[in-house]
Amino acid sequence: MPQKTIQEIADHVGGEVIGDKSITIESASTLDSAGTGQITFLSNPKYAPKVKDTKAAAVMVSQQVETDAVQIITNDPYYAFMQAVVLLHGHREHPATGTSPLAVVSGSATIGQDCNVHPYAIIHDNAAIGNNCQIYSGVFIGPNVTIGNDCILYPNAVVYDGCRIGDRVIVQSNASVGQDGFGFATHKGEHHKIPQIGIVILEDDVEIGSNCVIERGTLDNTVIGKGSKIGDMVAIGHGTKIGPHCLLVPQAGISGSVELGHHCVLGGQVGVVGHIKIGNMVTVGAQAAVINNVPDGATILGAPAIEANKAKRAYALIETLPDIRKKLKVLDKEIEKLKEI
Amino acid sequence: MPQKTIQEIADHVGGEVIGDKSITIESASTLDSAGTGQITFLSNPKYAPKVKDTKAAAVMVSQQVETDAVQIITNDPYYAFMQAVVLLHGHREHPATGTSPLAVVSGSATIGQDCNVHPYAIIHDNAAIGNNCQIYSGVFIGPNVTIGNDCILYPNAVVYDGCRIGDRVIVQSNASVGQDGFGFATHKGEHHKIPQIGIVILEDDVEIGSNCVIERGTLDNTVIGKGSKIGDMVAIGHGTKIGPHCLLVPQAGISGSVELGHHCVLGGQVGVVGHIKIGNMVTVGAQAAVINNVPDGATILGAPAIEANKAKRAYALIETLPDIRKKLKVLDKEIEKLKEI
Amino acid sequence: MPQKTIQEIADHVGGEVIGDKSITIESASTLDSAGTGQITFLSNPKYAPKVKDTKAAAVMVSQQVETDAVQIITNDPYYAFMQAVVLLHGHREHPATGTSPLAVVSGSATIGQDCNVHPYAIIHDNAAIGNNCQIYSGVFIGPNVTIGNDCILYPNAVVYDGCRIGDRVIVQSNASVGQDGFGFATHKGEHHKIPQIGIVILEDDVEIGSNCVIERGTLDNTVIGKGSKIGDMVAIGHGTKIGPHCLLVPQAGISGSVELGHHCVLGGQVGVVGHIKIGNMVTVGAQAAVINNVPDGATILGAPAIEANKAKRAYALIETLPDIRKKLKVLDKEIEKLKEI
Repeated sequence: MPQKTIQEIADHVGGEVIGDKSITIESASTLDSAGTGQITFLSNPKYAPKVKDTKAAAVMVSQQVETDAVQIITNDPYYAFMQAVVLLHGHREHPATGTSPLAVVSGSATIGQDCNVHPYAIIHDNAAIGNNCQIYSGVFIGPNVTIGNDCILYPNAVVYDGCRIGDRVIVQSNASVGQDGFGFATHKGEHHKIPQIGIVILEDDVEIGSNCVIERGTLDNTVIGKGSKIGDMVAIGHGTKIGPHCLLVPQAGISGSVELGHHCVLGGQVGVVGHIKIGNMVTVGAQAAVINNVPDGATILGAPAIEANKAKRAYALIETLPDIRKKLKVLDKEIEKLKEI
Repeated sequence: MPQKTIQEIADHVGGEVIGDKSITIESASTLDSAGTGQITFLSNPKYAPKVKDTKAAAVMVSQQVETDAVQIITNDPYYAFMQAVVLLHGHREHPATGTSPLAVVSGSATIGQDCNVHPYAIIHDNAAIGNNCQIYSGVFIGPNVTIGNDCILYPNAVVYDGCRIGDRVIVQSNASVGQDGFGFATHKGEHHKIPQIGIVILEDDVEIGSNCVIERGTLDNTVIGKGSKIGDMVAIGHGTKIGPHCLLVPQAGISGSVELGHHCVLGGQVGVVGHIKIGNMVTVGAQAAVINNVPDGATILGAPAIEANKAKRAYALIETLPDIRKKLKVLDKEIEKLKEI
Repeated sequence: MPQKTIQEIADHVGGEVIGDKSITIESASTLDSAGTGQITFLSNPKYAPKVKDTKAAAVMVSQQVETDAVQIITNDPYYAFMQAVVLLHGHREHPATGTSPLAVVSGSATIGQDCNVHPYAIIHDNAAIGNNCQIYSGVFIGPNVTIGNDCILYPNAVVYDGCRIGDRVIVQSNASVGQDGFGFATHKGEHHKIPQIGIVILEDDVEIGSNCVIERGTLDNTVIGKGSKIGDMVAIGHGTKIGPHCLLVPQAGISGSVELGHHCVLGGQVGVVGHIKIGNMVTVGAQAAVINNVPDGATILGAPAIEANKAKRAYALIETLPDIRKKLKVLDKEIEKLKEI
């Protein structure tokens, strides 16, 4: 592992060192676990008391604090810490397989420069893959798929025919992209499959978590906007459009034909019904059920989802329902007594 | 793409043309997006106003409407539209690989005529596959599995030993069929695996979505009834029986030993506890928690699930709980005042 | 299938036979389905009436009951039944492939004795696999992964680089272990990936269900404790520690940095927010939302989750909210009338 001096790290993240500038850092860790040779960070003020007691060699903070650790002062300690983790640990290194002779690559497919196509990857007719891509084992790339530069498809990810993937996209293991949307015409009690003629478009810098399911569109395309990050095991319905720079936490699910704006955050296990429009910069709390359009900037929670602060108060009161009913009976009796007077 | 005259399409779906019978149609699209050379449909009366303004060349409707588009009048426009999409676009065409020399097929397995078994598919001992099946790359077919005619198993789908699949069944990518049920005997604080000796039976015309998990039975079999369509990422517990012609929307989950009747619809993220019986033609709203038996024909909603209309009223009132408590305090005070008089 | 006399079975499970000791048993079945030559069990007293009418040849019970079947009396009939199922049916037998020449095994990887590494399995550099392991087709074992003895990795399971797996661990099909945690630093509206330098540790006797997603840790490791059984399609967040001997039912989800004690049970579709601590022997009902620390021994339910009995009463009363509001109006009017007197 590369060692860096604290000053090298501070220069890298554009921060200022308070304390011994000569110390060296080997690795990154949490406030609780960091020790000798390690750097950590304070982002959430809630954990400020822990900084005083940290055994870390160094800590990134937004303003000077009381601690024995060397401090790097920076505007955005969490972002700076991320940069330090990359500097010290780097991103995953990928095996240099080149295009393995054990990969099956169609003669009509094109593969850019410096790609690694692992054994037992499958690339079908007319697929086009850019430069510097990592296509792991068991990955299936269907006919006519296009993939940009610097993409990573982890083992057993599946991309169905015709889907389009931008640059720097990551698809984690066992994810499915572009399978048929859940679209059937029911006639005389039987469900008839509607050919799903739309595709999935993953724009630049998208990440799709492991075991996600991103349905292709029935008629329109399903789109995940630039820079959006989709957690593990998220389900996206046919024809839904996710705007840029959204975060969808694992196990969230969005039905078909939904429009989601930019910079939205959906908590874990959130459900969104079909054919609604969610504005920009909307935050939805975990497990919420979104059943109506949502305006820009809203923060909502609950099932059904309502404004978050209201929801916190209201849903916490469900447990008082037995008391409410008891109280109603008491009041009822008292009124009866009063009427008798 | 094949062009069809509007009359050809009308004849194909058994409809009547209102307007210029000579126009040609190239493709299908939505009411919002359809333009020159495209056909669309009106099924939900809510969208009727859009038909007036559509730029589509043609529209399928159940009765004549005011529009510049050529109309096809038909009893069931959504079903007719499905037929038109098949006519114009067809279902997915599958690569003609034959049985690839890169597939591993046991000497004791049998494969019917006109099948495509892709590279890196695995077919184990005594498996039997019918005619005209598509077995994509990375598919695992365990020992003693039987598969009927005209089935499609998409990449990396897994079918464990002994499971039985009917005709015209589709299993989408990364689905698991027949893995061990979640069955353990806990003894002195340790969980002991119970061999799961049941299998999974997928009857004719079933579709299993991507990344579904259909557990094999502990003792009895798990059964998905004829014509039922299971969306992506649905979980079915051991020994559960799904009746024919059900629709299970993505991320629904059913515990073990449940019986579900015919023509049921389960919304997204629905949960059903084990060992209960759900009748025929039951509809369960998204995210509902079904914890009791449900009679035929019921429509239920909520967690816990109750009759849907009742649920809509009741669950929407959760947000008034703070007002209810405030009101109770007000009434309490007023009664105290009255008592003092 | 091996036949056993009832006495052989009783001896095997340490039980006492009541009735004809010479009968032979061929297989195990449920109370409802069991017939000639079959053994079943009574564990839940709710089903006691069924024992009287069972057509089973034999039944395991905790105390003598009225029935025509031969009885085996044993302290823990469910555990004894599990032992009988193993005796009669055995666990799954695995194909004896040895290390297939169609598997890709790095020259620096080590594989113990008596392993079966199936065609199209992938084992990367410096991976170390113990004795008697079953590595099915399409399994991906990343660089530097270690796996103990007697493990089974079912088709298309993926284990990312550096993860550590103990002895007797089972990973079912299409599960993902060790993919990147959902960790991004958001800066100027863009989400930047934080290298996830922790790993996943699966301790001895863990089972991971099909299509699970077990994220690697951002800085700390994600740990699944000894003997814990994780159902299908469960999501575990980065850095979360599951104690030993827990049961997580399918579709449950736990966010990152959670600590879960020993012998906890999480119901289906449960959600747990990040950075909380759940004690030992905690039971969480299906679909619950756990948003706060939970003390040892608690049984909780609901969204938000509260003590289970309280929750059952309270959540069942949601449906009375329309009546409560009506009643409030009635009382209000009566008070107004009283005030007028």
